[in-house]
Formats: sequence, C-alpha cells, structure tokens
Amino acid sequence: MEYKHGGDVYRNRQVELDFSVNINPLGMPEAVRQEAMAGVLESARYPDSRCGRLRTLTAEHYQVPEDCLIFGNGAAELIFGIARALAAKKAVLLAPSFTEYEAALKCMGTDCRFFYLKEEDGFRLPVEEYLGFLEKEAPQLIFLCNPSNPVGTVTEREDMKKILDFCGAHGIFAVVDECFLDFLESGKDLSVADEAAGGNEGLFVLHAMTKIFAMAGLRLGYGFLGNRRLMESMESSVQPWSVSIPAQYAGCAAFGDWRNPYLCATRELLRSQREYLGRGLLEAGFSLFDSRANFLFFKDSARREERELYRYFLEHKILIRCCDDYRGLNGRFYRICVKTLEDNERFLKTLQGYI
Amino acid sequence: MEYKHGGDVYRNRQVELDFSVNINPLGMPEAVRQEAMAGVLESARYPDSRCGRLRTLTAEHYQVPEDCLIFGNGAAELIFGIARALAAKKAVLLAPSFTEYEAALKCMGTDCRFFYLKEEDGFRLPVEEYLGFLEKEAPQLIFLCNPSNPVGTVTEREDMKKILDFCGAHGIFAVVDECFLDFLESGKDLSVADEAAGGNEGLFVLHAMTKIFAMAGLRLGYGFLGNRRLMESMESSVQPWSVSIPAQYAGCAAFGDWRNPYLCATRELLRSQREYLGRGLLEAGFSLFDSRANFLFFKDSARREERELYRYFLEHKILIRCCDDYRGLNGRFYRICVKTLEDNERFLKTLQGYI
Repeated sequence: MEYKHGGDVYRNRQVELDFSVNINPLGMPEAVRQEAMAGVLESARYPDSRCGRLRTLTAEHYQVPEDCLIFGNGAAELIFGIARALAAKKAVLLAPSFTEYEAALKCMGTDCRFFYLKEEDGFRLPVEEYLGFLEKEAPQLIFLCNPSNPVGTVTEREDMKKILDFCGAHGIFAVVDECFLDFLESGKDLSVADEAAGGNEGLFVLHAMTKIFAMAGLRLGYGFLGNRRLMESMESSVQPWSVSIPAQYAGCAAFGDWRNPYLCATRELLRSQREYLGRGLLEAGFSLFDSRANFLFFKDSARREERELYRYFLEHKILIRCCDDYRGLNGRFYRICVKTLEDNERFLKTLQGYI
Repeated sequence: MEYKHGGDVYRNRQVELDFSVNINPLGMPEAVRQEAMAGVLESARYPDSRCGRLRTLTAEHYQVPEDCLIFGNGAAELIFGIARALAAKKAVLLAPSFTEYEAALKCMGTDCRFFYLKEEDGFRLPVEEYLGFLEKEAPQLIFLCNPSNPVGTVTEREDMKKILDFCGAHGIFAVVDECFLDFLESGKDLSVADEAAGGNEGLFVLHAMTKIFAMAGLRLGYGFLGNRRLMESMESSVQPWSVSIPAQYAGCAAFGDWRNPYLCATRELLRSQREYLGRGLLEAGFSLFDSRANFLFFKDSARREERELYRYFLEHKILIRCCDDYRGLNGRFYRICVKTLEDNERFLKTLQGYI
C-alpha cells in the first residue's frame, strides 16, 4: 500500500521538520498529555464502548443531546462509517478535497461524481453553480469540508445553509467535515453541528480532536447526527471498542478550563504566522490561495518541474505536502502547515535557496 | 445501544472485581506500559499507517514475511474487516461463539447458519459431524475460535488441519481466531498462523495483544493472511491510521526479552488457579466444562433462576459474565476469568453465600 498522505516521517527518517500535516503547532496540551498517560495506566481493561464520560462532557460543551453524538478512532473512522451506513449509489465530491472521502465511498461501490473547483476562482465553492451541478447529477450524498482541505477556503454560514436547504429539499444527505473549524476565531458561528444535533436528519457533521489538540497519534474524532436510524446503522457496523482508553481520557481533558486560553493562543499564533509565511511565499513568487485554516496552499511556477519543491525541501530535511495525488491538482501545488515562528523562519530561509 | 459484552465496569461503578473479561491477571507488563507512555509523548503526529517497526518485529518473531501481516485497532476491527472484504453470501458459525463474528457478518448481509455445539458433548467440536454440516450448507466462509470462547475447549492441530483441508477442497474461506492461544503452553503447536503466512490463501488467522498482555484499553490485534488480493481489500476498507501510536509502541515492547518469562509466569499461574477455581465451582455443585484457556465456563443448577448468580455476585461487587446473549446458551451459563489467588479466593468465599 503506497503512502499517499502527509506526515510520512516514518519513510523519511531524515526529516527534521514536518510541514506536511496540519497539526496545532503549540503541540499537545499538558492536560491532554497527562490524561492520556493516566489512560494508559487504566488500559488493562476494555474501553467504555459508549464513551460515557466523554459523551457527557462533549454534550455539555456543545449543549446538544448525548445521543446525537458518535465517537470514532479518529475522524477518518467516522468517514468510512458514514459512507458504509448510507451505502449511497451516487455521491458528489468536490475536487480537490480530502482523499479519504473518495476512498471510503469506493469501498461501498458508490459512483462518485466530481465538482471541480477552479484555480481561477481561487478554488472557492461557487454555490449557485454547485447547486446546479447537484440538480443535474441528483446524488444521494455529498461531502463538504469547511474550511476546505487542502486549500483552506471557508464556506460562510449563509452559503452552507443554502446548500443544506437544497439538500433537504432534494433528499440529498450532506456530510460536513469541520475538522479544521476550531482553528478559526469564527468557527463556532460557521459550524452547522447545531443543525445536525437539532433536527436536520439529512446531515452529519464531523469534528476531530486530532488536529486542534495535536493528538493525531491517539486518534479521536466525533460526529453530530440527529438521524436515529442512521446512528444505529453506523454503530452496528463498527466494533464496540473502537475508541481507546488513552483517547477517551485525552478527549475528556480537552474540555477542561485551559481550553479557551489554549485556543486563543493557537488562533493568535496562526493569524500572525499565517501572514508571515504567506508573505514569504508571495515574495518567493508563488501563487498563494486564500486560506483561513492552519495551513497554506500555493502553486509553484509552471516553469518548474512537478514535485521539484517537495524534493528540494526533503533534501533540506523538511517535509511538505505535494498535492499531485489530489483530483484536479498536479505536482506544482503544495500545502504547508503553519507552524511556530522558529520553524516558519527555517522554512522561509530554506526557501531562499530555491528561488 | 445495549451493552452485550463482559467488562462493563462503566455501567456498574460499584464493581470491585471484574471476572467478566478474559484478561491476563498479571496485568500489563511494565515494559509495555512504559512504551505506551512513550507513545503518548509522540502522539502529536500521525501514527505510521504501515505500522513499520511493529511489522518488522512481528514478522521476525513469527518468522513470516512482513507483507502477510495486518494490524488493527484491536482484533475486533479485523473481524469486521475480514467480514467486509469477503462479503460472503453464506457463512457457518459455531454456537455458542464470540458474538462479534455474527455482528460483523450481519453488517454485510451474510446469511449465517449455525452449527450448535452440544452441552452433552461438553460443547466440544465434533469434527466429522461439523464437516458434514459444512458439506450440506456449502458456505463461503467459516469462523472458528481456538481455544473456543466462551467455553475454552481446544481443537487439536490434526483436527484443525482436517477442517482446513476440507475447506481448501470445497472453496470455503476459514477465519481462525487464536486470540486466547498464547495462554496455552502448547499454543505455538496448535496455531495455524504458519499456514496462513505460508501459502494457504483460504485462511485468515487472528491474534491479539489485548488479552495476553492486558492492554485491552490500548487496542491492538493482528492477523496472518497470505492472500494478497484479500489483503488489499481489507487494507483499503479501513482508514490508514487505525492503530494508535501508544498501541504500536506497546506492541513493539511486547516482543522484548521479558516476554518469555512473563508468558511462563502467566501459564503457571493459570494452571494452578484454573484448577483451584474449577475445584471450587465443582464443590459448589456447578457443571464445569473443560477449559484450557484463561477462563472457566460453567452451568448453574436448573433449580435456580436465570441470571441469579450474576445478580448475586453483582450485589457483592463482583462482575461475572452471564452467557444468556450467546446463541445456544441461556442465563444459567456463566463464564469467569481466572485471576490471581487473592481475587479467586474472594470469588470462592463470596460463592459460599450463594450455595
């Protein structure tokens, strides 16, 4: 199995800096780490298959009913879970978008149609055109990601509402992946998790602890789903103990007092460092696209070879994400994570040798 | 979702002793715990989707090719994975047997037929009769568990070979769950993992770290599968990062120097304590079945109410496994784990108040 994602520091042992994965540069909060450790000490027994304490804390935090929550071994497990539970004949995906949507749907034999976002539009989602495409294709299922991945553009709430209304009227089930939304100041306003929890039976909203709390290695994702029948189907298609004890403990810790200051510090760092990195990329002559997430997406000049920048950075022990395996992109598109000032400085300094 | 397994200490907070799950009474080895902790510290990044280091160590340990190994978020994930990859029209299961086989097959719409083991035979597998049943039913898939769960009986290697030969000749795919085999002195001789790794393309053999190394909360299972096409299908139907970093680290630690002394001590303890507990159960008037695993399976007198023993022990803060949700059993059958002398003494002392 070929490795097709960011973060393969395992096959690139020389790497000193990994800009290829979109993880909070502040690292795993101490409270989360401590609780994950405490979880290891409890791990001679089986995990709570209902994620009881985590469920209660999550429900309290979002002010939603406990039974509209589902937890998974990372958000990725829930992507496969919802694809399986729906077993849609036809789905519409955006291109480019996170590759696991298509991977999950392929397992179910779902016919995937692609709505290609345009480079000249900055890969933004043109809502009316998209709805026209949905009308024409009449899928049972769509996947959206807000902010988008790998580009980082945001779909505003009114646009999202328009899409969800259209889906509701046309019997299309919508999966909205909000795994990067916590990185935005306005994340709470943009989220449609409340809709999924509050009665929209045609909507599944996906969140993850993985990226925002830098606990990708522990695996913890969760979803909001008000559709009881579908919830049962998702739950029964997965083993009962998929969320480990360290992950459950870490997840509980994530709802502690320290949460807001940590999120504020994260967003503050991202704001300044995204701008700093972005300026450096523009000055180097790259085409930079508008990202509000914790990563930047850009294009190298057409005169360069595909993957050339990737190889250059790898020689300098820095891993970046070459986007040639995304539908609708090629090896001149790259994605980098926004990291700390020190790391970003090294990135930009290294970049000087390329241009 | 109703809780249907052992180990639900989460909904039974008063429980002081859990005899309902089959976990090594010696607890998680210190080396495993330490490495799982080290894994938490590394968990800001994604897990290695190929489980590279764990794969190498496992392959060396079993002297098998690396590419015949598959790792999962607990053995349970692999049960669902193989059921999905095979998508069999018809399967034959033993009754009673581990409930997740049927749960996994149900998700795929597989028609499950049951070969009922008989109480008067001590729930042993009568090989010739079983093969006759397979001949009649002509399934595409069978699941076996050696030693069996919940009873603990062993299928000897020559019998297992006979079954596998029959399956090979009749195009039946066999899944052999050996999750409890490490608890037996003769485990290595009984295992058919070498067959799966060595060319039998109609065989999947399942192992777990969960029980033998008391790391159920960390989740780590692995399987032996020489069938390349099926391996690809299993791998593609699951997210790439299903095995967490703490689990991978713990798994690597499990192949350390301390392993053999720990396994010897485990088997030594089990031998004496299984006998001690078993004698106590017989003296109390229960029908005890022949188990060579780390648990004992017995029947309470017909004069008693179903689940009565379960309720009695729960009042005394001890959780045992009532087997009324197993096909072919009822609420007079129970399973208990063999634990340490101290715990077993408390169990037997408590039992005095019941008889």
